[in-house]
Amino acid sequence: MMLEKNTETFISCDAEYSEASIVLFGAPFDGTTSFRPGTRFAPRAIRGDSFGIETYSPYQNRDLTQLKVFDCGDLDFPFGNTQRVLNMVEAHTGKVLTDGKLPFMLGGEHLLTLGAVKAVFKKHPDLHLIHFDAHTDLRDEYLGEELSHASVMRRIWDFLGDGRIHQFGIRSGEKYEFEFAKRHTDFHPFNMEGLEETVQKIGTAPVYFSLDLDVLDPSCFPGTGTPEPGGISFKELLNAVLALSTLNIVGCDINELSPPYDPSGISTAAACKILREVLLVIGNGSL
Amino acid sequence: MMLEKNTETFISCDAEYSEASIVLFGAPFDGTTSFRPGTRFAPRAIRGDSFGIETYSPYQNRDLTQLKVFDCGDLDFPFGNTQRVLNMVEAHTGKVLTDGKLPFMLGGEHLLTLGAVKAVFKKHPDLHLIHFDAHTDLRDEYLGEELSHASVMRRIWDFLGDGRIHQFGIRSGEKYEFEFAKRHTDFHPFNMEGLEETVQKIGTAPVYFSLDLDVLDPSCFPGTGTPEPGGISFKELLNAVLALSTLNIVGCDINELSPPYDPSGISTAAACKILREVLLVIGNGSL
Amino acid sequence: MMLEKNTETFISCDAEYSEASIVLFGAPFDGTTSFRPGTRFAPRAIRGDSFGIETYSPYQNRDLTQLKVFDCGDLDFPFGNTQRVLNMVEAHTGKVLTDGKLPFMLGGEHLLTLGAVKAVFKKHPDLHLIHFDAHTDLRDEYLGEELSHASVMRRIWDFLGDGRIHQFGIRSGEKYEFEFAKRHTDFHPFNMEGLEETVQKIGTAPVYFSLDLDVLDPSCFPGTGTPEPGGISFKELLNAVLALSTLNIVGCDINELSPPYDPSGISTAAACKILREVLLVIGNGSL
Amino acid sequence: MMLEKNTETFISCDAEYSEASIVLFGAPFDGTTSFRPGTRFAPRAIRGDSFGIETYSPYQNRDLTQLKVFDCGDLDFPFGNTQRVLNMVEAHTGKVLTDGKLPFMLGGEHLLTLGAVKAVFKKHPDLHLIHFDAHTDLRDEYLGEELSHASVMRRIWDFLGDGRIHQFGIRSGEKYEFEFAKRHTDFHPFNMEGLEETVQKIGTAPVYFSLDLDVLDPSCFPGTGTPEPGGISFKELLNAVLALSTLNIVGCDINELSPPYDPSGISTAAACKILREVLLVIGNGSL
Amino acid sequence: MMLEKNTETFISCDAEYSEASIVLFGAPFDGTTSFRPGTRFAPRAIRGDSFGIETYSPYQNRDLTQLKVFDCGDLDFPFGNTQRVLNMVEAHTGKVLTDGKLPFMLGGEHLLTLGAVKAVFKKHPDLHLIHFDAHTDLRDEYLGEELSHASVMRRIWDFLGDGRIHQFGIRSGEKYEFEFAKRHTDFHPFNMEGLEETVQKIGTAPVYFSLDLDVLDPSCFPGTGTPEPGGISFKELLNAVLALSTLNIVGCDINELSPPYDPSGISTAAACKILREVLLVIGNGSL
Amino acid sequence: MMLEKNTETFISCDAEYSEASIVLFGAPFDGTTSFRPGTRFAPRAIRGDSFGIETYSPYQNRDLTQLKVFDCGDLDFPFGNTQRVLNMVEAHTGKVLTDGKLPFMLGGEHLLTLGAVKAVFKKHPDLHLIHFDAHTDLRDEYLGEELSHASVMRRIWDFLGDGRIHQFGIRSGEKYEFEFAKRHTDFHPFNMEGLEETVQKIGTAPVYFSLDLDVLDPSCFPGTGTPEPGGISFKELLNAVLALSTLNIVGCDINELSPPYDPSGISTAAACKILREVLLVIGNGSL
Repeated sequence: MMLEKNTETFISCDAEYSEASIVLFGAPFDGTTSFRPGTRFAPRAIRGDSFGIETYSPYQNRDLTQLKVFDCGDLDFPFGNTQRVLNMVEAHTGKVLTDGKLPFMLGGEHLLTLGAVKAVFKKHPDLHLIHFDAHTDLRDEYLGEELSHASVMRRIWDFLGDGRIHQFGIRSGEKYEFEFAKRHTDFHPFNMEGLEETVQKIGTAPVYFSLDLDVLDPSCFPGTGTPEPGGISFKELLNAVLALSTLNIVGCDINELSPPYDPSGISTAAACKILREVLLVIGNGSL
Repeated sequence: MMLEKNTETFISCDAEYSEASIVLFGAPFDGTTSFRPGTRFAPRAIRGDSFGIETYSPYQNRDLTQLKVFDCGDLDFPFGNTQRVLNMVEAHTGKVLTDGKLPFMLGGEHLLTLGAVKAVFKKHPDLHLIHFDAHTDLRDEYLGEELSHASVMRRIWDFLGDGRIHQFGIRSGEKYEFEFAKRHTDFHPFNMEGLEETVQKIGTAPVYFSLDLDVLDPSCFPGTGTPEPGGISFKELLNAVLALSTLNIVGCDINELSPPYDPSGISTAAACKILREVLLVIGNGSL
Repeated sequence: MMLEKNTETFISCDAEYSEASIVLFGAPFDGTTSFRPGTRFAPRAIRGDSFGIETYSPYQNRDLTQLKVFDCGDLDFPFGNTQRVLNMVEAHTGKVLTDGKLPFMLGGEHLLTLGAVKAVFKKHPDLHLIHFDAHTDLRDEYLGEELSHASVMRRIWDFLGDGRIHQFGIRSGEKYEFEFAKRHTDFHPFNMEGLEETVQKIGTAPVYFSLDLDVLDPSCFPGTGTPEPGGISFKELLNAVLALSTLNIVGCDINELSPPYDPSGISTAAACKILREVLLVIGNGSL
Repeated sequence: MMLEKNTETFISCDAEYSEASIVLFGAPFDGTTSFRPGTRFAPRAIRGDSFGIETYSPYQNRDLTQLKVFDCGDLDFPFGNTQRVLNMVEAHTGKVLTDGKLPFMLGGEHLLTLGAVKAVFKKHPDLHLIHFDAHTDLRDEYLGEELSHASVMRRIWDFLGDGRIHQFGIRSGEKYEFEFAKRHTDFHPFNMEGLEETVQKIGTAPVYFSLDLDVLDPSCFPGTGTPEPGGISFKELLNAVLALSTLNIVGCDINELSPPYDPSGISTAAACKILREVLLVIGNGSL
Repeated sequence: MMLEKNTETFISCDAEYSEASIVLFGAPFDGTTSFRPGTRFAPRAIRGDSFGIETYSPYQNRDLTQLKVFDCGDLDFPFGNTQRVLNMVEAHTGKVLTDGKLPFMLGGEHLLTLGAVKAVFKKHPDLHLIHFDAHTDLRDEYLGEELSHASVMRRIWDFLGDGRIHQFGIRSGEKYEFEFAKRHTDFHPFNMEGLEETVQKIGTAPVYFSLDLDVLDPSCFPGTGTPEPGGISFKELLNAVLALSTLNIVGCDINELSPPYDPSGISTAAACKILREVLLVIGNGSL
Repeated sequence: MMLEKNTETFISCDAEYSEASIVLFGAPFDGTTSFRPGTRFAPRAIRGDSFGIETYSPYQNRDLTQLKVFDCGDLDFPFGNTQRVLNMVEAHTGKVLTDGKLPFMLGGEHLLTLGAVKAVFKKHPDLHLIHFDAHTDLRDEYLGEELSHASVMRRIWDFLGDGRIHQFGIRSGEKYEFEFAKRHTDFHPFNMEGLEETVQKIGTAPVYFSLDLDVLDPSCFPGTGTPEPGGISFKELLNAVLALSTLNIVGCDINELSPPYDPSGISTAAACKILREVLLVIGNGSL
């Protein structure tokens, strides 16, 4: 009999908040998306379609059922007020950190990372950011706005500073963004080359991992707002995620899935599977 | 802060089971669907898109927030074993009835109504069935199977008998089904004519209301497995539902929404809105 | 055991050619379509989805299984050569007529009607044409071409002359087309008013019935190349078809279904159902 | 030879700015849309698909080619900053008015109407607003924001005051919104009844006409963010628009088309056709 | 003139049954599919879209027109009764074998393979099974049912026993399934490595080849019920199929294409092309 | 203020005709497409979605803003008259050449290349053609027509003769086409091998580059009329385009994008990005 309340979470992420070491939360916002909106629907799609994958990873020989993850559903955002949305993300992330748990945000658009990283930076001033993406996201402003999905890494650089942002897979941006990247970030355009060295250099410093899923080639991830051909394959992304397993990850997000642009659902499936792998990489210590 | 468990219900149907007078449950099964499957996705779609409508009905000047409805989510069915699925529906419906609550099933395909009506009939042997549909559903068997979406009303007639089934809106079937209907059911083909007389005749007897949404014209309800042109409009269905308000409804279902066949979502919107109106009609006594 | 050859026809239209009184043939051509192509896929879609409707019509209390209809599949057209395609349609229609059978073409675009009517006109110089459509189709030329879907009725008028074309439901065209219609055709814009009088006046003269399905409102027939809001409902079209039952119909076509523009399939369902009704109206004499 | 610059406008709206009496402009913003975004794509879709309709209206026996309309394309909005967007709409509308032309905005979401009406109100303090919609749009705030598509009429009422807003077709809202409407607006829920009386009462006062296309039933207008079943038909809307022909319309908008939710394109076709009819009604005086 | 019966087969597979050496048959069943149904539409889609490919393979320098293949269309299944469906597949396969022809099934879901292999095993008790798939399909039961798409290889192992099932490309399953595979099957997870050795070891023993198309990466095969990222490319699958050319294949199936989940049709195109290649590999001896 | 005329071009291709060195023009024709039409919509889709990419190429470290490109919009074709369409393409291409500019056609279907190459050949009788495609396009005729997308290279060979056509990536055709290619063209089936040698051999001779985008694997380019699995990746195509940079390209086209078959838009994104790269390769001399 199913006479308890209906609860929908990412597959097997059904721990109580008090016992959880990782807290998943949805951030259904796409308000600064300039081209094709729809990432607001991602968290719900990821939860729903997660039942199409298994909890067991043959790549890591670990199982999600071994972790304690709480999925608190989606934050309830006021559309049209970008600053308030960022404040809510920052406050929520801060609360999770205060309670000694790891915040894991499911976007939504990439600008949201700004709110989350601000909260993590307050606790970890020596924070590094690992950034997988197709786009530099280093614009100074976009259509006159400083708060934009296209400028999120620039806004984060404003307080993290040089050498703390590690960018991989980048293949699109304005010329000045590429030049900025070469001067101010640990910049690895086009692919994942150099990731192992970066991981070694970071060592035990705290790391925030921000995964813009459009780093994937549109062939395996068509459901995104700004598809950028020439990206990495799913297997390459999977191997890159596994390569992070020695890091001290203290915050995380996965973003830019836009389910309405993928009627086949393979993009959501990719998001679900990589989310499982990232959770297992992060939860490594507790297994 | 959203640090309780994530709960997704039909809009505002968030009562506890113990306090609820109505129990919604999803029945995500389309195993005997012969043409185009997909009704298994209906309950989840209805819950998710219900946030696009309001809780207030200007037609009835009532609000869902005035009712106590528990939405227990979806039953977990074994695909491929039709008889076991029907047994589960019957058992669940029986449990809800035993606890003094009204069972309200969200299909799923129409065959599921057989399981629900069996349970209600055990408690109410004088049961009447009001059936809105495009199809007679009176086949003796379909492709050799007695348990089929195309024979559900025939199977129910097997135990309810003559004069207890009241059919409206029917516009498709085999010739012998139309002849059977004329002899054995209270038969109103093509539209809703005669509904008020039927309601008056039934009076205070217990009634099960089974709404196959394909009674609607495909123009306003394209998302269904077997679209049948020439149906009634949404306003006609709305008026028909309002005309049921004096009845003693003791069980209910809404079925045959197939979201994959309607990328616009207007079929799910129609299901959500008519579900709100049916809930308010049924909950009338408690307001 | 299914060890005979696989044969796909419109539902129950499986007579041998020799015994058939009606010959269905698909004409998968949309070469002059200026806006959105796709009607080439209509005949195959109609055959495939015809298994979603019943052979029995409760409107006429007749059954397709009572008729002898041969469905010979699709003509094999050379795309890019409009004149050759029209010649093939004319030749095929002529052969069917010579064999004493009624030709019934499934378009394809509306220009094809020119080929079919030419063949019928050779046998029946006193031919009348009943034309249901959203568009006048009376252009003198279109983008410099005399052979265009937008000028098919003008080309037919070239040999049928004044008073022989009876147009219903028209709601779109250039100003000069409306003026031409008022002078040269039996013109009934916007709806079906006057159909009964027209049927009476025609009496026993031979009639070709050309049904451009976009006469239907886009709400019930979205899958067409040039949707034109403000059309008639499916019930109005059904009643209009039933009103033709006393006519001496000697040729027929149904056209302008474009399945790719209707993922819900309700347009194909409408085409299937109205095709069943037209077949039963035409086959009336043999029942 | 096409060796001039490529120009895409709504069909035949290709006058120079200096000679035009009406100025069309696209407002591709959906930043406060809470449910399903996509109206940002509407102006471009309307222009592109306008070539599927004719310039001639058989309903009014007038032709768009008789009017002088300038289509200046889309405003270039900063996504994520709602107030700046509204300021841009207000400034643009004011400039058009200053130049003695009628501003006609193609949304985008309904909140944009606030910017346009503010500019028109500055010039016409005795302004009336005719509002066709499915929703009251009278919320005081929505998710904590005063600037929302759900509160646009409330914000306009803030300066227009009682009796100046005339609402038709409304069938959705919170209970307090319906009560507010009954006290403060000229309120005609569910349909167009009373429109002729309203037109007579307004007489020669200046009128802004705001058409939220979701007043249409989803069957004929599925492509919108918040489909609300039970609306009016296209013919009813057409007749309502024709009934405005005696009014002194000084500003206008058409909004809430969301093309991504309608793969059939019938919603865009409806928008194109009704836009043609509104333009011809407004341009009446100059014909 | 096309006045013979309309016949739709896979491209050029139009031999008579009596002369054919290979018999294609469609098995349109997806009754135990737990996630997204739709494979029932695969055989018809494959036949229809096969006209988009050529009969000639430049990879093998052979042509389908050189083979004698009979395509008998689809079996007519009773939806909802899984055991009866399996019995029908077994009987049909047995009849084809008795007539000295090779059975080639087009699914449908993967469970159907159980019926086909049972029939082949009766004739060839020394049968080997080559299995390309993303999933182990080795569950003991699934939601309480022993007959499930997720347990088909386990059911076949029940009678084939250890060492006879050769699995390639597997990348998803429960932990115990991977452990079972390592103990009881010739297990090659993740890719096609080891295929040549397996082919050599099998030698001239009779082989059934079961190709679950979801072994392909979702990028090249999005249209399937349970997309599993990280699969092989089309070229890798093609090479693997060519590597089977020395085997004594006595039965075959291709399954798990779900056309509704791929509006682009690339999945059906992949199925058509690989089907051509498999037919040419099997028909090798007769060329 | 946007009070100039609305102009939509490919991103940043907004030079005046007089100053431009390259002239883009759309050729929206798909009249001989035998399988799935829709390439007529490609030029408009490419222009609209070009705003989703950047003008800067990190691969070439050049920017489109450095070039002078005029985009004159689409030619206005008479559908249904293939020869007239080809004549228009030839005349337009000739005019552009006469004015000393490089013609760059956006198809449309591949047959259009015949018209463009004829015009270029008149000016450059020593012309070479580099042809990337999945299909040989070497049929003598197709369904009785010599002017067909499937015979375009054969028609061009009729006047270019042996050794002038260089084909890469071909993986589909009839047997006799492959044999013809081996005898008469510089033939590189399956992939891009040998491209550098070909480029060296051509040296400074004038080259027309015809890019049929279906040379790409359907995984990264699903939106095309005849998807052919087993193609090259986007990165392979990108590298092949970069390898052309030393050539003397005097004419160019990109064709066979069919946007309706790719709701995700990744095919249009691939077309936009490769178009940017080809423009930058061609415009190399002027930078």
